[in-house]
Amino acid sequence: MLGKGEFGRIRDYLAPLALDGAFDLTDDAATINPEPGCELVITTDTVVEGVHYIGDEQPEQIASKLLRVNLSDLAAMGGVPRAYTLNMTLPRDVKDAWVKAFCQGLADQQSNFGIGLLGGDSVLSPGPATFSATLFGEVPVGQAIRREGASPGDYIFVSGTIGDGALGLLAAKGKLVALDEVNARLLTERYRTPEPRIALGLALRGNATAGTDISDGLLADISHIADVSNVGAIVELAKVPLSSGGEFALKAEPLLWKNIVTGGDDYELVFTGTENLAEKVKSSRVPITCIGRIIAGDGVQLLNEQKKSLHIDVSGYRHG
Amino acid sequence: MLGKGEFGRIRDYLAPLALDGAFDLTDDAATINPEPGCELVITTDTVVEGVHYIGDEQPEQIASKLLRVNLSDLAAMGGVPRAYTLNMTLPRDVKDAWVKAFCQGLADQQSNFGIGLLGGDSVLSPGPATFSATLFGEVPVGQAIRREGASPGDYIFVSGTIGDGALGLLAAKGKLVALDEVNARLLTERYRTPEPRIALGLALRGNATAGTDISDGLLADISHIADVSNVGAIVELAKVPLSSGGEFALKAEPLLWKNIVTGGDDYELVFTGTENLAEKVKSSRVPITCIGRIIAGDGVQLLNEQKKSLHIDVSGYRHG
Repeated sequence: MLGKGEFGRIRDYLAPLALDGAFDLTDDAATINPEPGCELVITTDTVVEGVHYIGDEQPEQIASKLLRVNLSDLAAMGGVPRAYTLNMTLPRDVKDAWVKAFCQGLADQQSNFGIGLLGGDSVLSPGPATFSATLFGEVPVGQAIRREGASPGDYIFVSGTIGDGALGLLAAKGKLVALDEVNARLLTERYRTPEPRIALGLALRGNATAGTDISDGLLADISHIADVSNVGAIVELAKVPLSSGGEFALKAEPLLWKNIVTGGDDYELVFTGTENLAEKVKSSRVPITCIGRIIAGDGVQLLNEQKKSLHIDVSGYRHG
Repeated sequence: MLGKGEFGRIRDYLAPLALDGAFDLTDDAATINPEPGCELVITTDTVVEGVHYIGDEQPEQIASKLLRVNLSDLAAMGGVPRAYTLNMTLPRDVKDAWVKAFCQGLADQQSNFGIGLLGGDSVLSPGPATFSATLFGEVPVGQAIRREGASPGDYIFVSGTIGDGALGLLAAKGKLVALDEVNARLLTERYRTPEPRIALGLALRGNATAGTDISDGLLADISHIADVSNVGAIVELAKVPLSSGGEFALKAEPLLWKNIVTGGDDYELVFTGTENLAEKVKSSRVPITCIGRIIAGDGVQLLNEQKKSLHIDVSGYRHG
């Protein structure tokens, strides 16, 4: 074993991140208690080196994305982030400096989002680095935004711009050759550092009929809403909002529209409600665009500018 | 990708395990709310194939141990088990039948311990199978049993028998050649299927001054209590309770006493309190043995039958 070992890593790197109630990570378990009238919202995600991230990222970027991806799930439910636990499975030749930088990345995001570490573990493995984070947020009892609840006639909205996650991954791998340097950097940054839409999630509580975050791909995530709500959906491709990098890339390679609507990793919110929903939640200061409607029936239809159906597999990008 | 993929594995194997509040695992996150007057106790552990288990176990045994090890942490805090989340990182060539059997193992333990699945994920990796479980229990606010709190004069107690985890691992690997077949099976079973001392943990609330479970090794776990309580500890080797298999193995190979007190993986409870503590918690029907005392100072001393100090590295077995 190189370096500090589990106890040393926990003592030196993780314990300083501990929240009240985590007993400085010196106990078997930690305690947490939601505020009166609230319940805890819990979400968890695993990332594997070489599968969910490339491996050439800085350790602090990997830590940042791990938390942000989970925070996006809390945002989608309308949760206020509060705490997290972390499982670090590290390759046997991991250097202490790498772990230290990773934990600095965690610390940065903790102060960004007002969360603290509740507990966790650190083990070595012959396999690639694997991290699981479990995030805890709070919502007033019964007010979590769910995928279920969309009704025919609802409008479909998205926050921010769509496709940057998938295009950013291509850019990071050097596969968008037509792209200029600035747009390549912007897209790569959007892929590496998604922005969890916490404030928007809070504003959507009691206003949206259903919602989720876009992790599997725009159409796949809309189909998740449609499936559990027992409705169908129509999305107009021309209305899907693009970043400047997205527009540039699409102009150079028109077939990239498929990546944009199925690629995933955007971590924007997609949600449904009445026509004036965007107006109701503008306090969150996130750009919101209406991209379609909920209809009776099932499945997701994607329409081109001539309102003709485009055939596309909406199943979304799958890591495995 | 072989088999069902992430969505299929979640739909077919994990969703049937879902608890109320987990929305059948169709949402970004799940909700949980402790009973009035209670707070949540949270613990998490990762196991890696080839590191934390051998790899030739049945899938349902691996699932069972994963939950039981975490339940033991809840027991140590005096928690009532309630729910869990699961991160499955599976090797790329995993068979659906393996995952199905693993999830049957989870289902068995869910009904054994009255818990349900809150959420989780399932990803593929080029590395070995890696599982993280995060367990949620409940305690009345402020009543969690902690490692901190032992005072000079307190007695040190353990539940059950000690050393079976370490000896069972040796037996499972065929390394205890002197052992008869029945005792080898019994020890292997103790290693593979630890018994979380939930009822004892509940009885210890308000009665024990400090406590933890024996996962790192008897002496290491006592030293964790001593360190955070700012006290020392004396343990008498002759008082450490052994199973019939443990006694048999020790008679055949006297040096195994070192494995017994440092080996870990026992998942018995070690706790401190007044002399009559064993009497107070006998309703839990778990055998309890006094093995030593808390003293002023620091460190853990191990005494032989002549009350002489034995020199031993108490740092415990480290997986990495």
